[in-house]
Amino acid sequence: MHVMSPSISQIAPAAIGDDLDQVDTPALMIDLDAFERNISAMAETCRAAGVRLRAHSKTHKCPEIARRQVAAGAIGVCCQKVGEAEAMVAGDIEDVLITNQIWGANKLARVAELAKTARIGICVDDAQNVADLSAAAVAAGAKLDVYVEIDVGAGRCGIAPGDAAADLAQTVVDHDGLNFAGLQAYHGSAQHIRAINERGAAIGAACDHVKATLAALDRVGLSAKTVTGAGTGSFEFEAASGLYQEMQCGSYIFMDADYAQNQDRVGNPFADFRHSLHVLVTVMSATKPGFAVVDAGHKALGNDQGMPWVADIPGARYQGPSDDHGTLALQDAARDVHLGEKLRLIPGHCDPTVNLYDWFVVVQSGRVVDLWEITARGAIR
Amino acid sequence: MHVMSPSISQIAPAAIGDDLDQVDTPALMIDLDAFERNISAMAETCRAAGVRLRAHSKTHKCPEIARRQVAAGAIGVCCQKVGEAEAMVAGDIEDVLITNQIWGANKLARVAELAKTARIGICVDDAQNVADLSAAAVAAGAKLDVYVEIDVGAGRCGIAPGDAAADLAQTVVDHDGLNFAGLQAYHGSAQHIRAINERGAAIGAACDHVKATLAALDRVGLSAKTVTGAGTGSFEFEAASGLYQEMQCGSYIFMDADYAQNQDRVGNPFADFRHSLHVLVTVMSATKPGFAVVDAGHKALGNDQGMPWVADIPGARYQGPSDDHGTLALQDAARDVHLGEKLRLIPGHCDPTVNLYDWFVVVQSGRVVDLWEITARGAIR
Repeated sequence: MHVMSPSISQIAPAAIGDDLDQVDTPALMIDLDAFERNISAMAETCRAAGVRLRAHSKTHKCPEIARRQVAAGAIGVCCQKVGEAEAMVAGDIEDVLITNQIWGANKLARVAELAKTARIGICVDDAQNVADLSAAAVAAGAKLDVYVEIDVGAGRCGIAPGDAAADLAQTVVDHDGLNFAGLQAYHGSAQHIRAINERGAAIGAACDHVKATLAALDRVGLSAKTVTGAGTGSFEFEAASGLYQEMQCGSYIFMDADYAQNQDRVGNPFADFRHSLHVLVTVMSATKPGFAVVDAGHKALGNDQGMPWVADIPGARYQGPSDDHGTLALQDAARDVHLGEKLRLIPGHCDPTVNLYDWFVVVQSGRVVDLWEITARGAIR
Repeated sequence: MHVMSPSISQIAPAAIGDDLDQVDTPALMIDLDAFERNISAMAETCRAAGVRLRAHSKTHKCPEIARRQVAAGAIGVCCQKVGEAEAMVAGDIEDVLITNQIWGANKLARVAELAKTARIGICVDDAQNVADLSAAAVAAGAKLDVYVEIDVGAGRCGIAPGDAAADLAQTVVDHDGLNFAGLQAYHGSAQHIRAINERGAAIGAACDHVKATLAALDRVGLSAKTVTGAGTGSFEFEAASGLYQEMQCGSYIFMDADYAQNQDRVGNPFADFRHSLHVLVTVMSATKPGFAVVDAGHKALGNDQGMPWVADIPGARYQGPSDDHGTLALQDAARDVHLGEKLRLIPGHCDPTVNLYDWFVVVQSGRVVDLWEITARGAIR
């Protein structure tokens, strides 16, 4: 096994006690007060709704954050990748659901190995994959929780709801080393529907698919102990449905510019959670009136759901990123910028942004109070 | 200084001697034969044109590749970031140009420190930045090559061509610790203009700005030893201009789907360089006719200049990526796929794709023949 030597980016961009001007840029920062408020708000909302929180770690890829979510009441975490699960279990998380289909003997052996020290769940939508999982679990002497994923409208992974799903659940039951644990019923694209009534309608349709599948399970004498799904954009609907027991919200800890454009219950911008994640950048060039260039482009920001917002200057717009540069349009900005100045951006999309960094620089009252390792950064396998 | 412990992604996805089916996915692979052909072709083209190649390392972030470029005749490399320069100097590259403006006392001290063991160039477009650079160089007892960057049409960094640039060059000359080395005259956006005549016209306009600036330098009794710029999309024009001595091409080693859409000299798709970079993915779900899901989304592919191409199946289209998934549309595909199958994608944009990985898996005749560390992965500071 070849393990790489430490890379340049693994040197932290700040030291504890630094003020913001001393933080090297681009750096990924967490506003600790806003972050802790988000953690509490979600924990409280789930408690009040009578559902469990299984926070999605693909957002943060950081065991320190996972431990804080569990301490606040989450039952464990979700992961997308086996590598993420390995990082979480190595970081003392004891209950992990891989919300994905995993193929390949080597990867499945890793999954089964993890299940010897932690509770590990995984999703299936194919009978051959069930057989492969069973073989891996039996070989390791481990037991896996298996969730049948149904396609509730996202059109991505998942078997058809209803009888097909029930048949696959029976296949799980028939295989050694596997425990049929319930249904994965996640509607990813619904998270980003802006209008509250349309978002509610999409989750309503998802719930109909869940109901049909629970009925089909009942017909073959099976039951789903847990229906798991939901995300930051839609979880209030799943929580209120009476059908889902587990919420897989991830982005709520940070909030990004994309989620902030969702409408809330009364038609206002979605404000249940605060922006706690920033990318700190430096103004590096300003040779033309009304424009400036900052030191963060596609390699420092996940721009796939839109551009970041400039937190520190109302009216300033980040635009036209290239690999390592972004332009600030300042024509409508509340003030001008000066060369060498550091500014905070709110990422357009938090998950792929976090995956570009090795460290969270944790800030409170304008000072660096902690540094958290993003140990699952790049864990895409 | 806090240095992070090794992360999960630093375990290599393959071992030397593996065949492709044993490579864990998603993995970043280099086709060694195509790669070596690209290295030779560019070296030969530059030699024939009488210009020097200073290959851009932002594309590969890998000292092993930089050393191969130098061995083939490149005089050194370009970097965008101080961290990249540190990784290249640590990897025995002795001549590095930072093609960027760098601000902040700590970063400039790192630049000056590097200049004690390697030849280091850097770009400026502001007089205060020149003074800051001088202070850092003097404090370290080092000498820096300083290039005045002029805006030749890209509208990003760079001072106005002509007298303003000549004044700034005089400012460089007037400061201790700095050597006025020439002009940075790079037109990034011109690289991606599809039509050959329009691309040539953009570089023609850039050349006019260079000429005006050389004349302005002459009026104040200065001369630019080197005019440096150009990229894979346009370098034939700069090389033929008689104005540029150095080419900063980077993407030619890999070629991506974006560059492949440029028109060549006779109006054909640009084919001087071969696709040598692939992302190997696994088919993980296929529950609907005509569609399949693979295990690579935004965290495994830089999609900012368009979607990747499916190298192994003519007519198959990759679309609709989310964080960790991509969909293959197979309606027009030459064949169907099977679950668990591994497929090669040609990235839409090579630079941000490479930055997501820790390892290049080097392949020849269907076997893994080497593993190269991407030590400047994430070196965005």
